[in-house]
Amino acid sequence: MPEPSFIGVDLGGTKIYTALADHQGKILAEIKIPTEADGGVQHVLRRIGQTVEQVSAQAGAGVRPARLGIGAPGPTDSARGIVHQAPNLGWREVPLKELLEEALGLPVTVANDGNLAALGECLYGAGQGVADLIYVTVSTGIGGGFIFDGKLYAGASFAAAEIGHMTVDPDGPLCNCGNRGCLEAVASGSAMARRARELAEAGGGQRIIRAAGGKDKISALSVSRAAATGDREALAILAETGKWLGLGLANLINLLNPALILLGGGAMQAGKPLWEAMEREIKERALQASRQQVRLAPAGLGPRSGLLGAIALAIQSSAPGDRIISIS
Amino acid sequence: MPEPSFIGVDLGGTKIYTALADHQGKILAEIKIPTEADGGVQHVLRRIGQTVEQVSAQAGAGVRPARLGIGAPGPTDSARGIVHQAPNLGWREVPLKELLEEALGLPVTVANDGNLAALGECLYGAGQGVADLIYVTVSTGIGGGFIFDGKLYAGASFAAAEIGHMTVDPDGPLCNCGNRGCLEAVASGSAMARRARELAEAGGGQRIIRAAGGKDKISALSVSRAAATGDREALAILAETGKWLGLGLANLINLLNPALILLGGGAMQAGKPLWEAMEREIKERALQASRQQVRLAPAGLGPRSGLLGAIALAIQSSAPGDRIISIS
Repeated sequence: MPEPSFIGVDLGGTKIYTALADHQGKILAEIKIPTEADGGVQHVLRRIGQTVEQVSAQAGAGVRPARLGIGAPGPTDSARGIVHQAPNLGWREVPLKELLEEALGLPVTVANDGNLAALGECLYGAGQGVADLIYVTVSTGIGGGFIFDGKLYAGASFAAAEIGHMTVDPDGPLCNCGNRGCLEAVASGSAMARRARELAEAGGGQRIIRAAGGKDKISALSVSRAAATGDREALAILAETGKWLGLGLANLINLLNPALILLGGGAMQAGKPLWEAMEREIKERALQASRQQVRLAPAGLGPRSGLLGAIALAIQSSAPGDRIISIS
Repeated sequence: MPEPSFIGVDLGGTKIYTALADHQGKILAEIKIPTEADGGVQHVLRRIGQTVEQVSAQAGAGVRPARLGIGAPGPTDSARGIVHQAPNLGWREVPLKELLEEALGLPVTVANDGNLAALGECLYGAGQGVADLIYVTVSTGIGGGFIFDGKLYAGASFAAAEIGHMTVDPDGPLCNCGNRGCLEAVASGSAMARRARELAEAGGGQRIIRAAGGKDKISALSVSRAAATGDREALAILAETGKWLGLGLANLINLLNPALILLGGGAMQAGKPLWEAMEREIKERALQASRQQVRLAPAGLGPRSGLLGAIALAIQSSAPGDRIISIS
C-alpha cells in the first residue's frame, strides 16, 4: 500500500494554489492557476477540481490523496465547513466543505487562509519550535493567525486574528469593513497605493508615477520601486505606513506577549525604510517586558505559507481523535 | 488526616486580601488589611505573613495550608517567581516567591493579578464552562486576563493581557507607561477623574465638584455620583469614557473572537450611561462574525475575582505534573 498523500489548496481572490504532499508535508507536486472568481462559485469549484486532478496526475499513478485541506480568504467556520464571507471572491455563506466533498469524493477540511499561513509557518517555516507566535500578512489587506501554546488559536467561532481590523486611528480613513481607521486602512499595500494616488492627484509623486508607468497604474509596488531609487515622497509613504504597522504590532505585543512575529505578504517586500519605521514605533509603544522578549522576522515560506498550512490541516484532520486545526 | 487547604493572596497597592480555602476553592476564612506599601518590601511581606496566620487561626487548629498562591499588580514571571514591576507598590524585580517561601515556610506560586482574576472568574465566577473568555478590570488602571481553549494564556514571558496598554488614540494623553493614547489613559477611572478635573479647572463641573466635596477631591466616583443625578457634564464624561472602552473591546473582539467578555473593577459600577456608550462603539467597530458570537457581562465574583484566582493558582500548582497556571 502506498503512503497516504494529502492535498492543500490556498484559495485566493486572484489565484488557486494547489499542492499534493506526503504525510510529513513534503510537496510532491504543485500548480497555480487564476481563480476566475467572476465565473461564480461552481466555476471556481471546477477549477479547484482541475488542480487536484493535475497534481495527482503529476505525482504518479499510485497516488490517491486521503484528504484535502483548503484555506479561504475570509471568516470561515471550520466545524461546519462554511465560508461566511470572502469579499475578494464575492462569496457569502458558501458551504465549501460540502460542495467540494461532493465534487471530489474526498474528505475536506476548510479554514481561514491567514490562520493556515500561521500554522504553515509554525510547522514547516520560520516558526518551527516556537510555542507563541503571530503571523501577519501585509498585502492588499492585512490578515494573519495566532499560535498560542503550540496550537492554532481560532477563537470561539473561527473568526480570530482579524489583525487588519484592529482600530488604530479612530477618525482615520474608511475601511472596506465599514469601520474607520482599521490597521488595514492605514498600513496595507492598498493604503500605500492610496497615499501615492492622493499625492499624484495633488500634483506630486512624479517618480512614483514614472515607476508605475502612469498615474492610473499606481500600486504599492510602484511606491516601493520609487523608494528604492531614493525618492523622498515614496520614502515618506513607506515611513508612514511602517509607523502605523508598528503601532498595530505594538498592540499585539502588549496584548499577546508573543515570542515571535512573522511578517509575510507582498507589501513587506518594500524593504528597509518600512521595517525601520515599524521597529521605531514598536520601540516607542510596546512595554519593555514584552518587547525584550519578542523577535520580528520575515515569514520563511514565502508564497507557500498558506499552502503548507492547508496541507497541515489535511494531515491533522485525518489523524484519529485529533482536534481540528490543533498542532500538539 | 485533614483535607489539604490553600492560601490565596490578592496583593494590591492599597490592600492585602487573603483567604484560606479548601481544595475546591471554598473560602473557609478571609481577611483584608491595608498594604502599607510605603513601608517597603519587608514590611509588606510581614503584613502578608500576618494575614496568613490570621486566616489559618480563624479556620481552626487542625488546618495546615499546603501552598500559597499570590497575585501581584504588575508583570510577574510565574516560572522564576519574580515581580518585574509593580508601580503601585513601588516594586521592581522583587523575588516574591523566594522571599515569601523563606518567611512562611510554605511553597508559593506568584502570577499577575489581572491574569488570576480571569482564572478566578473562569473557574468559580461568571465564566464557568466558557472556553474562550476575556476578563477586563477597569479601575484606576485597566488590566485583565485571557482564557483561551479553557486555559489561562500568559504569553511567552508572563506579560500577556496588558489590555490597558493597547494604543487606541495615537496622539492622545500621556500614559503612566510613557506611551501616548493607551486605553488606560483614556478609558480608566483615572481618565474619568482627569476629564472632570479639567472641566472644573475651566470653571465647569459644578455638580461633580459638589458630589466630590471639593475640587481637589474629584474622583471617578464623584463623576458617577453626579451622573446618577442626571448631570449632563458628568454624563458626557461617562459617554466619552465608554466610547473609548468600546473601541478597546472591539479590538479585542476582532483579534480574539471571545465567547464572553467579563467586566469588573470599580469604574464599571458607573452604570448604564457608560455601558451603553461602550456597547454602541462595539457595534460600530466589531466585525459581525465575532460580534454576533460575543456576550458582555459583569464579572461574577466582585472584589474576589483575583483572590479566587490566587486560590486556584495554589490548588493547581500543587497538583503533580500540572503546568503552572493551566486549568485543563
